[in-house]
Amino acid sequence: MNQIIAALVDDKPGVLNRIASVFRRRGFNIESLTVGVTERPGISRMTIVADTDEVGAERMRLYLYKLVNVIQVENLTKVSKMCRNLAMIKVKATSEERMQIMQLAEVFRARVVDVAHESLIIEVTGDDSKIDSLVEVLMPFGILEMVRTGMVAMERGAKSMADGLEEAMLQSYLNVEEAAIA
Amino acid sequence: MNQIIAALVDDKPGVLNRIASVFRRRGFNIESLTVGVTERPGISRMTIVADTDEVGAERMRLYLYKLVNVIQVENLTKVSKMCRNLAMIKVKATSEERMQIMQLAEVFRARVVDVAHESLIIEVTGDDSKIDSLVEVLMPFGILEMVRTGMVAMERGAKSMADGLEEAMLQSYLNVEEAAIA
Repeated sequence: MNQIIAALVDDKPGVLNRIASVFRRRGFNIESLTVGVTERPGISRMTIVADTDEVGAERMRLYLYKLVNVIQVENLTKVSKMCRNLAMIKVKATSEERMQIMQLAEVFRARVVDVAHESLIIEVTGDDSKIDSLVEVLMPFGILEMVRTGMVAMERGAKSMADGLEEAMLQSYLNVEEAAIA
Repeated sequence: MNQIIAALVDDKPGVLNRIASVFRRRGFNIESLTVGVTERPGISRMTIVADTDEVGAERMRLYLYKLVNVIQVENLTKVSKMCRNLAMIKVKATSEERMQIMQLAEVFRARVVDVAHESLIIEVTGDDSKIDSLVEVLMPFGILEMVRTGMVAMERGAKSMADGLEEAMLQSYLNVEEAAIA
């Protein structure tokens, strides 16, 4: 089963590089990785989907903690959460087919964001399986191109990864010092 | 001005690592990077937003082309395109505030995807400035956490990056051979 890991990291050059090379070196198979800014300036949040088991995810969490600029890491696989992807899909559409495609999009709560003479761009959000289903339904019309973000995940309820962030930041610097000594 | 680059790459382990380390080595400042699957099995599409100028973007394009498993690279900065981000924002919300927040979300065509006793999760798509505006509007209620995908971009109209993909794939192998000889 895929493991979903969220990490708060300093928004500094080289962080992505260091993380990607740890995964590479340790042989982790990354299905998806996204990075985006958070509500706190200077801190980015990463969502990593890895093809591994619980033990692998725990190892990954520990490897990440050892890196400079990694502040907090949580395994979200088992918690109750929202998982979302965003896709834009460009579909061939003659003027006769256009209405039909728009109706299909509506069923998936997708939005038509661009209409051209012979094509449409549809924007859809959801988990992987929802997006895959829409892609399948649109396939007969002809998919011209598709772009998808990786998955982002967030725990339901009022709990936040930023709880205790100050302590975690301190801890991340201590870890670095420890690593330097060891 | 930020440059937006789209790349089709083989979906193989180590690709992200190689790309991230080229950017690091060449000193490019990456604002956002997303990778996702495409309509073609085995091929992923990457959207890179870099803080550089046109000349820098062209150098980046050429560096990328030299890498194994990079099939096609296009600079989308100047073409007419759709740019989208996805964000999930967890906001503090007492039962009195809930309706007010939901109405604000509606103005931004955002969706409430989770309601808890003292918080809401809102899902929104759009360009950076739209998401930033929503964040600003929600700030007074208290933002508990936020996760954002990077930007994905797609040219408007019927043109596709997959046009001429077969030739590009052949070319990418030739480039590798050339690089090996040089």
